[in-house]
Amino acid sequence: MNETGEGGTMKSYRKELWFETRERMAFLNITNQVQEAVTESKVQEGVALVNAMHITASVFINDDESGLHRDYKQFLEKLAPHEPISQYRHNDTGEDNGDAHIKRQIMGREVVVAITNASLDFGPWEQIFYGEFDGRRRKRVLIKIIGE
Amino acid sequence: MNETGEGGTMKSYRKELWFETRERMAFLNITNQVQEAVTESKVQEGVALVNAMHITASVFINDDESGLHRDYKQFLEKLAPHEPISQYRHNDTGEDNGDAHIKRQIMGREVVVAITNASLDFGPWEQIFYGEFDGRRRKRVLIKIIGE
Amino acid sequence: MNETGEGGTMKSYRKELWFETRERMAFLNITNQVQEAVTESKVQEGVALVNAMHITASVFINDDESGLHRDYKQFLEKLAPHEPISQYRHNDTGEDNGDAHIKRQIMGREVVVAITNASLDFGPWEQIFYGEFDGRRRKRVLIKIIGE
Repeated sequence: MNETGEGGTMKSYRKELWFETRERMAFLNITNQVQEAVTESKVQEGVALVNAMHITASVFINDDESGLHRDYKQFLEKLAPHEPISQYRHNDTGEDNGDAHIKRQIMGREVVVAITNASLDFGPWEQIFYGEFDGRRRKRVLIKIIGE
Repeated sequence: MNETGEGGTMKSYRKELWFETRERMAFLNITNQVQEAVTESKVQEGVALVNAMHITASVFINDDESGLHRDYKQFLEKLAPHEPISQYRHNDTGEDNGDAHIKRQIMGREVVVAITNASLDFGPWEQIFYGEFDGRRRKRVLIKIIGE
Repeated sequence: MNETGEGGTMKSYRKELWFETRERMAFLNITNQVQEAVTESKVQEGVALVNAMHITASVFINDDESGLHRDYKQFLEKLAPHEPISQYRHNDTGEDNGDAHIKRQIMGREVVVAITNASLDFGPWEQIFYGEFDGRRRKRVLIKIIGE
């Protein structure tokens, strides 16, 4: 099924989501909040950019399955362990989040999602997650929607 | 060479590509199919979003060189081995593709490619690949094009 | 603060940046050059795609902190060491940059950044970097801006 938009004026919409997780590392399903922003934007055909505004956090798309999320956390912790914090030169600045900057690069900063018929255009299991790697502080996600 | 589009009405176009690989892990060059969609869209200036619609598959851009593809497979298999499948909590659900969810995050879900003069705006060696990490079933890629 | 663009004609803008690093692996802050392109584009609301045009280089967003950059280099070198070059089948072609193709996939090819009020719409520490993994030759980054 191919679909062609008829062509119209371009609209844009911007919204921030705020989070504060209790854990250092956490994944939050934000799919409904992003769809809500798409509806508010009145965009029928276009794209939604969803990105972490902080550099120790990610936005990514995968399955909402708790076993998988445990696998991701274990995988990331093995690749870039939080401790000892002295292993990261970034932590010489007084920070303790050197690992979080690496974990975020692996999981990615952003997703771009198609909007079709005013909805997120998703496969069967796609869900959008906010990935926190240095939690316990208030942080933001930016949603920017453009389309017609 | 800087180029400015004159400004016009926004168009959009949507197309799905379907794949079924014989191997569990495989890389398919889909560059021509994406360019075909760009041509069908009649968009002259804009962007093409190309994303896996399944969460154990990737779309990525790199070189079409078989030695490199073997290196990628070996690298990914070392980082997140398929076996033993009992090492992944996701597989407690009855799946055996816990590794594929991790491999897909490393290689990425999507690419966004510039469209200039109705063509994919690429450097000398850039080619678009569908990356399959849990094959032998039918899966889709979404192409969403917006522009003028 | 949610903001809705009023709707207008779509504009596009394209610009290339050229680099030649002295080191094999290097990170260059290109934030100001991307903002300059946004200003030149006269786009008020939209998105900027910034991507490496070469397949052994990345564009990514993180902190401009030298300790962190050393951590990234050490992490990437451990995951995909440059030497021995014989460990990569890609290098059987006569290349010595098999590792660089892997490093680039981990750090990513591109970023998509929101443009709001004619500026890059960034969180407090976000900076755009060109990531080079096979330097000492001239290479390009593409900036493609669309919006209204």
